[in-house]
Amino acid sequence: MSEQPQGLAFEDFAEGMVIELGDKLVTAEEIIEFASEFDPQPFHLDEQAGRASILGGLAASGWHTCCMLMRMVADKVLNGSLAQGAPGIDELRWLKPVLAGDTLTARIHVLSTRVSRSRPSIGFIAMRSEMWNQRGERVMEQSNSVMFRLRGGSA
Amino acid sequence: MSEQPQGLAFEDFAEGMVIELGDKLVTAEEIIEFASEFDPQPFHLDEQAGRASILGGLAASGWHTCCMLMRMVADKVLNGSLAQGAPGIDELRWLKPVLAGDTLTARIHVLSTRVSRSRPSIGFIAMRSEMWNQRGERVMEQSNSVMFRLRGGSA
Repeated sequence: MSEQPQGLAFEDFAEGMVIELGDKLVTAEEIIEFASEFDPQPFHLDEQAGRASILGGLAASGWHTCCMLMRMVADKVLNGSLAQGAPGIDELRWLKPVLAGDTLTARIHVLSTRVSRSRPSIGFIAMRSEMWNQRGERVMEQSNSVMFRLRGGSA
Repeated sequence: MSEQPQGLAFEDFAEGMVIELGDKLVTAEEIIEFASEFDPQPFHLDEQAGRASILGGLAASGWHTCCMLMRMVADKVLNGSLAQGAPGIDELRWLKPVLAGDTLTARIHVLSTRVSRSRPSIGFIAMRSEMWNQRGERVMEQSNSVMFRLRGGSA
């Protein structure tokens, strides 16, 4: 998918497809802002506390990393699409700390596609998403399914 | 745990423990603010678009619900504790839409505790967290482990 996808429907996904989501610089300011609102633990709020923890520096909340990925997916895949939300996350691993100043790159692998039996105007796209830092270390991996309407569907 | 826990360490958790996290009103304003930053899909941004979707109204991003739970856990359990972050989420289900005006109640069940073999100053607390709305419907369930230092540990 070399172009910005527009108006994606269930039928536009296929097993084996790889979707590049671009990259994102993570600043100390946004780490602290997110943590202040949602995850006020010392190692997400303060550089010294981060260094003293097993995270090794001012580290983004794992939920913040999820939200950064969500925004990249929204911008590159879901924008203008027939996406209908997601039932959950099958597995999520925070593999390495995300530290202030890191640049994250993300990619989606489409694992499978299937039309809902109970609701045939909707299909499930199963995907595995990965994020790396600028040192090539994988920082997060998650597997989940997203619901899309079929282009011909009447949901 | 009837009191606000202070300074919890690994040793303070035990299988079968239930931790009540209180409740949280979800406003349209905060649903839209979160979605604008992290999950700008129409049904998270606009009441009419929400009604037209399978969510049935202006609905919080699932990640927003996770973040609301995270904040409740931070305030009631992690504040001042020896928590050292979490390696991931084993499973997460968004069971019902969270709509503007809902009041969510949350609870943690401690499933098991174990000291790390490779790092004996740290232990893993496996937990299942649940959130309900004011109609008693479960809206989210997640299972994960959180790392805590042992009180005697020297991590």
